[in-house]
Order: sequence, then C-alpha cells, then structure tokens
Amino acid sequence: MGHGAFTEDTRVEPAGEGRYRGLLSGRWGVLGGTPNGGYLMAVAGRAMRAALPHPDPVTTTAHFLAPPTTGEVDIEVDVLRAGRRHSTAEARLRQGGRECVRLLATFADLAAVDGPTRLLRRPPQLPPVEECVDVTSEALTAEAGQGTPAPPILVRFDHRMPKGTMDWSLGRPTGDGAMAGWCRFADGEEMDTLGLLVVADAYPPAVFNSGVDLGWVPTIELTVQIRARPAPGYLNCRFSTEAVTGGYLEEDGEIWDGNGSLIALSRQLALVPRPRR
Amino acid sequence: MGHGAFTEDTRVEPAGEGRYRGLLSGRWGVLGGTPNGGYLMAVAGRAMRAALPHPDPVTTTAHFLAPPTTGEVDIEVDVLRAGRRHSTAEARLRQGGRECVRLLATFADLAAVDGPTRLLRRPPQLPPVEECVDVTSEALTAEAGQGTPAPPILVRFDHRMPKGTMDWSLGRPTGDGAMAGWCRFADGEEMDTLGLLVVADAYPPAVFNSGVDLGWVPTIELTVQIRARPAPGYLNCRFSTEAVTGGYLEEDGEIWDGNGSLIALSRQLALVPRPRR
Repeated sequence: MGHGAFTEDTRVEPAGEGRYRGLLSGRWGVLGGTPNGGYLMAVAGRAMRAALPHPDPVTTTAHFLAPPTTGEVDIEVDVLRAGRRHSTAEARLRQGGRECVRLLATFADLAAVDGPTRLLRRPPQLPPVEECVDVTSEALTAEAGQGTPAPPILVRFDHRMPKGTMDWSLGRPTGDGAMAGWCRFADGEEMDTLGLLVVADAYPPAVFNSGVDLGWVPTIELTVQIRARPAPGYLNCRFSTEAVTGGYLEEDGEIWDGNGSLIALSRQLALVPRPRR
Repeated sequence: MGHGAFTEDTRVEPAGEGRYRGLLSGRWGVLGGTPNGGYLMAVAGRAMRAALPHPDPVTTTAHFLAPPTTGEVDIEVDVLRAGRRHSTAEARLRQGGRECVRLLATFADLAAVDGPTRLLRRPPQLPPVEECVDVTSEALTAEAGQGTPAPPILVRFDHRMPKGTMDWSLGRPTGDGAMAGWCRFADGEEMDTLGLLVVADAYPPAVFNSGVDLGWVPTIELTVQIRARPAPGYLNCRFSTEAVTGGYLEEDGEIWDGNGSLIALSRQLALVPRPRR
C-alpha cells in the first residue's frame, strides 16, 4: 500500500466507543474549497472500516445534510450487523455538533469473493491513455500561467480524457451528457476501495456536457456500489446524466480497471438550485 | 386517492414520539410468503411521510439486515433535517426487537417542482398494453387450474409483458438480462410515490432472463429515486442486470408513466448465496 495524500487526508483517530476524529483537508475541495462529497464518504468509510470486520464498502449511501468545511470532523459509527460475509454500519459526520453527512454502508471482503461472473455490459470505449488529453497538467499550467485556479480535487488525480471532453469550459459542451476518461491518483498512491468513493464524485459534473447550463448542482444523495479491488494503474471511468426532470438529475457512474474488470457503479441525485429572487 | 390493498397494508399507527406500528401483510410476499423488500420500504416510507413536512420520497435507500416475517412491525423514525425544499429521515424497522431494515430517505413535494427538464433517455419501447401478455391472469389461472402457486406480490399488480418475457419460467430466458412491462395495481388503486417503492422491487429478478441460473438472489441494498408523481394508468417499467461479478449483481430499474414522463430510477445490489456444502 502506498501512502500518499489520500491516506493522509482520510486518517481517523479513535475517540471513544464507536467514535473517531479526522481532519478534512482543503486538498480535496471543489472550487471555493468546500470538501468534495466523495471525499467525505471516504473519511466516513475509513472510520466504518475501523469499526467493522470487513474492509471493503460494497455499497455506501450518503445523504448530504449541510455543507462541510475544512478542519476537524467527528465521526460516529454504529455497527448494525456483523455477519460472516457482510457487515453493515451507519456513520454520522459532525462538525461543531452539526451533522453534515449521514451514511449507511455494507462492507465485505472483496478478496474472498467467489461467485459467478457474467458481463452483458462492456467497459466504456476510450482512446488509449497516450492519445488522451492530460487534463491535470493543463489545469496546473493554466493556474501557473493565467492564474485560473484549478479545483483542488481535480489535480489530486492524473486525468486523461478524450479530446473535447473539457470543452464545455470553453462554451462547447459535447452534448452527450457524459464525462469520461482514465484516472489514477496524481501522487502515485495505489487505489483501494475507499479511494473509489472519491473517484465516484471526482469528475466535473456530467451535466456540464449536456448543453443545459445549470451552474453548480448540489448533491442530495450519492450511492457507490463496489464490486472488486482495482488492478494497479489507470481506471476507466464514465459518468453520465441522461434525465434532468423538474430540476432533478441523476449522475450514473461506472468505473472499470485496466484489465476490463467492473470495479464500481455509482449514482447520485442532485437538484438544480432555485434562482435567487 | 383510491384506497385499496396497498393503502391498507402499509397503514401505520403512531406509537409515541417518532414511533409507529404497522402490520406486515402476506399479500405482498414473495413465493414462500416473506414480505417483499420494496413493500418494507413503502411501510417505512409511510411512517417517514407522517414524520416529515414533505410527502414524496425523492431518494430512499434500504439496507436489508435480517429476513422479515408477516405480522407486527415497529418503525422508529428520526428526522435528520427539515428544510424548505427537502427533509431527510432515518427509519428502522424492527420485529420482536430485531432490526430487519435500516433506511435513509430524503423527501420533497414533487407537486411543487419547477426546475428545467431535458431528457437524453427515452422510455423503454414496449408493445401497446393490448398486445402484451396478461401475466397476472395467467398466473391466477395456473394457480386455480394446476395448483401452481402465484407469488402473492405478482398478483397485486396487473402485469402486461411483451411475449416471451416470462419464458425463463419454462427454461427459455430471453438472454438480455431484462424484465420489462406495463403494470398498475390490480385492484385499481391509484399509484402514489410510496407505491413506486414497491413497483421498483415487484418484478421477477431481471437476472432470470440473463441465462445465468442463480436461483433466489437476496437483496443487500435497494435505492429508489423518484422524480415525479405518476399519471393514472399503466406504468412502463424496465429492470435489467448487466453485470454479475463474483456473485454480486446490480438490478437497475426505470419507471415511466403513460405520458412519457420519467417517474423513477432504481438500483439494487444483490449477492448470489453460497451453495450449502
């Protein structure tokens, strides 16, 4: 296991029975610095992993209750069930007594999986890594040169995306409602199943490529289902929004590893904010 | 609002601060009589609706902890947040002191939705209702004639499915990993947003049409995201399983109404039981 920014910034310390304390870092913030939702899930996941007999979050749901800030965070974990193959916990993230995220998760040991496999689904078709745009380097170059700030969470990853994927930022969305690309941690840390919780929320919103200009769309709920521990190297990720209805939208994600194994499926529900009157 | 079996069988009575009591009916059981998971979610949803200022569960996640039985159930509801547009609650279903389901849900008022709509997704292409097979009548006829028991939950709905959809039961799965069809409550009760929680889990497992014979596959977690109150009449539903990996599988659902409005998206994670040794 490499130890990089992800491991450092999701560290939690025991603080009594079922209680943990962590420190939310600005390194995993969106533009403006608010810690990313997937990062909050990973911090909570770290605490649940400490409390449970199984290491891998096979399904985790977070409801986002209040905006978090960087700094201290208290995590309360209740173990609901600890079975042979699965264990389930609830986690509550609090800052200054205010709950910002409530989670439910079921954990397993994905190294011990031994059931049948049959895929009707195939990995997203991406050009090879070397033919993709190095979005991370471009963002860092723009920050250094023109002073355009890069979202901190974007540059925690080494993102390689097909040409045109980020042209929404120049007013030219692809129109397909999708964000896809290869990614891995920028500092070379190996990805484990907690890291996948961040990957599931680390891309620019897929709706930015839909042609509907909605601005920033806060997440109400995010569920990540993890199937396998990824092989080392780049992950093949695709996120898409196909239905904006009455201001609500889903973002569906799929994460594959370089060996063509399905690693995770994710879905979030978000709501377009009402215009200020 | 019509009052039929669904309203009767999801009734809850207040039993103290944040506490409710209900009676799980065998009418919503799978073969063998165990109450269906979506039905449990609807009973919990009824209690959460009573505790919250908003009526519609826009996103509900249930983790299934222990098999339920018919009979008395206690529901504990904690309100986590009550905002202007949304409110969030946790619910715990207990029988005889044992927790069988833990839920998190965020509610809204879907009659008050006023944001943008843009669909890249289209309703599943189904033949018209009158060209579909009346699966419910066929199941009732087989029960009366050959004594083949119909799963109670199947016959709570008026199911109209394209020819061949149910041929997995004759050893001829379609191979596409999908179950699709029109449905509505069999007794004519109008569908509201709590009823959709049952619809999301009321079809035979889509994996039965995948060609992988897995037998009964218990649900670990089910999330239902609801976008709109459905128009009266049949719903257009499609459920599919595209990735069985290491014994884990997803079932993704989409529910549309007869006007072509997207009503709900669902996803469950299930795990093939290990063979007894």
